[in-house]
Amino acid sequence: MNRLRFKNQSLDSTDETLITVLAKNARISTAELARTVGLSAPSVAERIRRLEDVGVIRGYTVDIDPAALGFAITAWLRVRPLPGQLKKVAEMLANTPDFVECDRITGDDCFIAKAHVRSMQDLEVLIDRLLVYATTNTSVVQSSPFEARLPPLRAI
Amino acid sequence: MNRLRFKNQSLDSTDETLITVLAKNARISTAELARTVGLSAPSVAERIRRLEDVGVIRGYTVDIDPAALGFAITAWLRVRPLPGQLKKVAEMLANTPDFVECDRITGDDCFIAKAHVRSMQDLEVLIDRLLVYATTNTSVVQSSPFEARLPPLRAI
Amino acid sequence: MNRLRFKNQSLDSTDETLITVLAKNARISTAELARTVGLSAPSVAERIRRLEDVGVIRGYTVDIDPAALGFAITAWLRVRPLPGQLKKVAEMLANTPDFVECDRITGDDCFIAKAHVRSMQDLEVLIDRLLVYATTNTSVVQSSPFEARLPPLRAI
Amino acid sequence: MNRLRFKNQSLDSTDETLITVLAKNARISTAELARTVGLSAPSVAERIRRLEDVGVIRGYTVDIDPAALGFAITAWLRVRPLPGQLKKVAEMLANTPDFVECDRITGDDCFIAKAHVRSMQDLEVLIDRLLVYATTNTSVVQSSPFEARLPPLRAI
Amino acid sequence: MNRLRFKNQSLDSTDETLITVLAKNARISTAELARTVGLSAPSVAERIRRLEDVGVIRGYTVDIDPAALGFAITAWLRVRPLPGQLKKVAEMLANTPDFVECDRITGDDCFIAKAHVRSMQDLEVLIDRLLVYATTNTSVVQSSPFEARLPPLRAI
Amino acid sequence: MNRLRFKNQSLDSTDETLITVLAKNARISTAELARTVGLSAPSVAERIRRLEDVGVIRGYTVDIDPAALGFAITAWLRVRPLPGQLKKVAEMLANTPDFVECDRITGDDCFIAKAHVRSMQDLEVLIDRLLVYATTNTSVVQSSPFEARLPPLRAI
Amino acid sequence: MNRLRFKNQSLDSTDETLITVLAKNARISTAELARTVGLSAPSVAERIRRLEDVGVIRGYTVDIDPAALGFAITAWLRVRPLPGQLKKVAEMLANTPDFVECDRITGDDCFIAKAHVRSMQDLEVLIDRLLVYATTNTSVVQSSPFEARLPPLRAI
Amino acid sequence: MNRLRFKNQSLDSTDETLITVLAKNARISTAELARTVGLSAPSVAERIRRLEDVGVIRGYTVDIDPAALGFAITAWLRVRPLPGQLKKVAEMLANTPDFVECDRITGDDCFIAKAHVRSMQDLEVLIDRLLVYATTNTSVVQSSPFEARLPPLRAI
Repeated sequence: MNRLRFKNQSLDSTDETLITVLAKNARISTAELARTVGLSAPSVAERIRRLEDVGVIRGYTVDIDPAALGFAITAWLRVRPLPGQLKKVAEMLANTPDFVECDRITGDDCFIAKAHVRSMQDLEVLIDRLLVYATTNTSVVQSSPFEARLPPLRAI
Repeated sequence: MNRLRFKNQSLDSTDETLITVLAKNARISTAELARTVGLSAPSVAERIRRLEDVGVIRGYTVDIDPAALGFAITAWLRVRPLPGQLKKVAEMLANTPDFVECDRITGDDCFIAKAHVRSMQDLEVLIDRLLVYATTNTSVVQSSPFEARLPPLRAI
Repeated sequence: MNRLRFKNQSLDSTDETLITVLAKNARISTAELARTVGLSAPSVAERIRRLEDVGVIRGYTVDIDPAALGFAITAWLRVRPLPGQLKKVAEMLANTPDFVECDRITGDDCFIAKAHVRSMQDLEVLIDRLLVYATTNTSVVQSSPFEARLPPLRAI
Repeated sequence: MNRLRFKNQSLDSTDETLITVLAKNARISTAELARTVGLSAPSVAERIRRLEDVGVIRGYTVDIDPAALGFAITAWLRVRPLPGQLKKVAEMLANTPDFVECDRITGDDCFIAKAHVRSMQDLEVLIDRLLVYATTNTSVVQSSPFEARLPPLRAI
Repeated sequence: MNRLRFKNQSLDSTDETLITVLAKNARISTAELARTVGLSAPSVAERIRRLEDVGVIRGYTVDIDPAALGFAITAWLRVRPLPGQLKKVAEMLANTPDFVECDRITGDDCFIAKAHVRSMQDLEVLIDRLLVYATTNTSVVQSSPFEARLPPLRAI
Repeated sequence: MNRLRFKNQSLDSTDETLITVLAKNARISTAELARTVGLSAPSVAERIRRLEDVGVIRGYTVDIDPAALGFAITAWLRVRPLPGQLKKVAEMLANTPDFVECDRITGDDCFIAKAHVRSMQDLEVLIDRLLVYATTNTSVVQSSPFEARLPPLRAI
Repeated sequence: MNRLRFKNQSLDSTDETLITVLAKNARISTAELARTVGLSAPSVAERIRRLEDVGVIRGYTVDIDPAALGFAITAWLRVRPLPGQLKKVAEMLANTPDFVECDRITGDDCFIAKAHVRSMQDLEVLIDRLLVYATTNTSVVQSSPFEARLPPLRAI
Repeated sequence: MNRLRFKNQSLDSTDETLITVLAKNARISTAELARTVGLSAPSVAERIRRLEDVGVIRGYTVDIDPAALGFAITAWLRVRPLPGQLKKVAEMLANTPDFVECDRITGDDCFIAKAHVRSMQDLEVLIDRLLVYATTNTSVVQSSPFEARLPPLRAI
């Protein structure tokens, strides 16, 4: 029940500030966070616990730069399973660590998946393994108009 | 120069463990992190600083559940600017907070962008604003074979 | 023979009024209908019987709001049977109650079918069952410029 | 509030029977309907009023056979407005009586509309008027695996 | 009225033989034609006049081999007019003698037109003139499974 | 050798007139034809024999109106054989009399074929037989900007 | 006239050997070439001059490895000019040195062009300049089943 | 190691002149080449050897005109292997001498291959052999905005 609490309303401005600060530096101490929003530390801790409880905050994570690890190329694949291979393809996508994001989407009813690879040769190996169970359409990322970011925290 | 250090090699297994632990809980204390990998806290702090310096770790962030905020629908849009509207469209995508991720890709040379919206009506408003400067193709997310995750930390 | 009577001519204005009134409220009493068009009840009953006999009026039905029953999403599917699965697919479409309308059409020679579903998850289940025998392309309804209505009753 | 009553539950079996009978013959008298379901007429009238109040029953209408009126051809058009013509095209579709059904859909973000016409010549006139403000893709109906029908009245 | 005489029935076997013989050699004399079908010449002349009157036979023509005149390449063009250029494009197609056949068709609502040209250079000139008013898609003929022929003369 | 005579030159103006007259009425008598072009009958006969010998004139045929025989609908099909079914499909097209014209073309490397049918039902039967061995895309003819005609007889 | 000499015949086996040897090392001395084919040097020189005269040999060139010059990415672009921009686009392609090969082709009637670029960023710059006058579709080369080679020198 | 020498820098202007001269006439003598660039012959020989060693110059070859050998038609094929036929198709392309250039590319993840053929009939034979293992899309070359040329030798 609690989980639905925010469904039809947006966060208040303090919640919003807390999340915005955590989004920029999730390793900030609660004390510092408290100073930023002008509340006591226990009160901030309570608010954060509540945001976690209702499922707004799912966790805290680290942001890795694939390029710094030698992944020179990012590609988007649309993957359309051959008849009867739907589950197999979903499993392959889940079990191939090069894919970092994946959705099943409407339209030609396929998967769209993002991969980081070291070279065009590695990309081809990735595609060739899928081609036994699916048809694929691959696009290489040229640039990004903006970095991945949080959804809007309040209704507009 | 330092930034290229990891380009042609992967991380050692301690680096990998540190990142994996931080990926699951970026708010873990350095002391606890040290216990996990069996090193001293200063040594762990030094390693993390180095991973930040070389650009492998770009930052620490919070993971928000769009559904918990009432964003019932996730959609992927392929957006192809009309002649002469390339910059305008890139700016619109960057300035519209509903879009949380966006890449310019090869193929039909368009943008691919992910949006969280509260309803089909909100999605239509989003599309209608783009249609003045671009043609669009929209797909709605049905499910996800796996959650977004880190790229592989070591060569396979 | 009678059935062809209206084929090359349109209805007269009284017929047209009768149908228009019945289209808005098919449960209107014959007496009230008679008052509306300024004829006697037997004469109205006779006209209606004739419109039924020649096949212009096929019946009287109830208009249900799928949203009121919890069908939050309406989708259009283009369904293209795999080789040899034409009959099987036609049967599946006919036997799946979620589909409320279906035509076989020219173009890529497929079926186009409209479905009401409770959620994206239910839509995916629907698609997955078809994917064993067909390829599919799914579009979700965003809005409707007008409600379903009768064809024009008189030549323009 | 009332209107949401059926949202997360399905109808009971008596409601279902009432609607099914009305779907086959909306002009049935309340007395006869009462006999069919084995309830008193006032009780049936009460149930129907409630189904109307909560919005499950939107109305009662007449089913016209377009072929009996000389509409020899049924066509589906996908209509994609030219830049800046979105509203104009939606209005044209709404104001052209040959179109009996229309939805704005995801995918190539266009309208899908059904038309009844007397001949291929009439279909061409219809298309030509749209082509000033939109691109179109037209498919002619060959057959229908089943007649338009109600959505499922109870959860499966 | 006469013109509709054959609409819902096929030709008798003598009519069919006459047309088949004329299709192979339209310059055959009436006398010879009479001998072939075992009727008197006046009777054959009468039958032919009737077939012309009801519009089954539209005329007699000569069959030219484009290759013998140096037209080395046959191409099919799908021609889609730019907005507002529908009439202009139809006129261009009609006024360009290289096009020997042309239909306006459903689907992407374009013209399909057949052209005989002497070379790929001539084909390009043809296309370039259309590209000012239309988009085009061109296919070159590789071979023909059969020569152009009459429609079936009797119901099957 | 003779057959190549016209390859790199066009016809002279008398040849052109002869063919143009025969194209309009192939059953014209040689005497009348001679009068039209102002030559003796033997000289006209000689010229025609030569045009036949070099292959410019392939024959004389009759022009049938499919609509007068009850073929209400003309359709273009693009037919793409399934793997291994190329010959089978070419044979089916050749052996199905409803198809009156057919070419194998570049592009998606399929057949394009024209059919005259009595109704949408007959068209569907035609398509269904092909669908076992091929995928098809069907377009219905709406109108024709001009009637089928001869290629240009002289270089422009 | 001479230029057409080889049109309908293939080269003799000595010509073929000469060309094959030159294809592998165009800087070979005539003396060494003569030893290879077992003829006198003047006789070899004479044959080569003849192959040049008839246009079979157009010239001798150097084979550069784009990767060795830092061109990390090879891409194929299909470029479709906007209405009225055909000449402009052909000029842009000719005047942009990154494009090393280009053909105007049938199908969607566009240009296909091959480019060597140093990075995805450079590729994007290339595309952006074209997008003002054309729509583009870009594919990145993953690998090559074989290196570019001569056409067959003799009929098979 | 040496091979990477030019990777991040371009050639000096003398290297560039040498390659440009060789590109126009690879059979030029070293003496003449030396005169052109105003260096001694040994110094030119040394530079050329170095350009070969680092892999910039891969070799010297002959430029053949396919048209002079009777190859009247040039075609581009996009070849998409059927499931499981990826290797087979790559081998077929490599072993068919009519194909003179071939790349595996992103997009619909197919091969793009260039063929020189003597006639449309030969092209069809080529396609038919591929169709057993792949789907194909063929485009015929109409013209070329420029001849194949070297990549840019210096950064712009």
